Amino acid sequence: MTSLEKQIEFIKEIDKLKYIQRKTKLLNSDRNENDAEHSWHLAVMAVILSEYSNSSIDLLKVIKMVLIHDIVEIDAGDTFIYDSQKNHTNTEEELLAAKRIFGILPTEQAEELIAIWEEFETGETNEAKFAKSMDRLEPLLQNTSNNGGTWREYNVDFETVYEKKKVIKNGSEVIWQYAENLLNENVEKGILKKKQEKTNPS
Amino acid sequence: MTSLEKQIEFIKEIDKLKYIQRKTKLLNSDRNENDAEHSWHLAVMAVILSEYSNSSIDLLKVIKMVLIHDIVEIDAGDTFIYDSQKNHTNTEEELLAAKRIFGILPTEQAEELIAIWEEFETGETNEAKFAKSMDRLEPLLQNTSNNGGTWREYNVDFETVYEKKKVIKNGSEVIWQYAENLLNENVEKGILKKKQEKTNPS
Repeated sequence: MTSLEKQIEFIKEIDKLKYIQRKTKLLNSDRNENDAEHSWHLAVMAVILSEYSNSSIDLLKVIKMVLIHDIVEIDAGDTFIYDSQKNHTNTEEELLAAKRIFGILPTEQAEELIAIWEEFETGETNEAKFAKSMDRLEPLLQNTSNNGGTWREYNVDFETVYEKKKVIKNGSEVIWQYAENLLNENVEKGILKKKQEKTNPS
Repeated sequence: MTSLEKQIEFIKEIDKLKYIQRKTKLLNSDRNENDAEHSWHLAVMAVILSEYSNSSIDLLKVIKMVLIHDIVEIDAGDTFIYDSQKNHTNTEEELLAAKRIFGILPTEQAEELIAIWEEFETGETNEAKFAKSMDRLEPLLQNTSNNGGTWREYNVDFETVYEKKKVIKNGSEVIWQYAENLLNENVEKGILKKKQEKTNPS
């Protein structure tokens, strides 16, 4: 196969991302979002919000990250962030998936994309931190619009959500300030329940 | 409203792109693709195939173009490329849509994105030419996998398809060579019919 033929095979393979359903629903909706839609939304968000990154970032790299960050789920499936049984990141299964799917590409390009995916998963560079902020912000907007959405559906308390969301701060203090306010508003409106409220309902 | 609040409003508004159905179906599928999925796919394709651009391009700009090129369809609706009644590009309706939707953003950012959208529509810069190549290539792969897909469904002949697809050449000679071969193979397999075959079936 020529390089181009390999690349076309990869482009066809990743069409499957459009079938991977997330737990979260579209805004004001009961229709589940799929991974391709989610990845598109994060990419546009990165374009729109990059000015708020704590550190200077290579926006092109951030966009590549969010475009491909869920491709491994074609093989490994969506792992729900509030699933206490399974670690969301860097499972063996996801690594195998990355090697198989990106491995369809010519070697050099496969290696580049696997490295970008691992950089996102590790979350240590400025680009990965900002990309992860986008990945945490989108479902916050979705659940807020859906009267709690997956928080309510899976009985997730404020403290647990807060713990997951506060990584937004590593990417952007400004966006975190917005997100933290939104979380507090959700508590005031009864959309998110604190631990105490849940064990001792008044 | 602060700039960030305007940007969040925009991010929420464009969620609607996930409901805009295209005529084309996913690969080997009878499920219609939506505009958000389509835009994601073009963005990844641009990342993967940029080496084949005829001219040197600003890849970040190409990606911005394909990510936002269909956002106007939230108001204006999807226009089918083989619709002979309506011009696909730059209708008044689309310009109004661009002004309304991008206009939710802070002024400077709104102007930047409207300019990028217009650059894509005009199709004259190297970035716009390459972005359009991606936009023509994806449905070619889809229709090929779906035994003709929209070509068959709407009775579109080879010559008409060829005319629409040959703009790929303006973005990439290499990709056009692949695409042209694929079109010819589709004729050989009877997936695409030439005008003559259609009027004088043997």
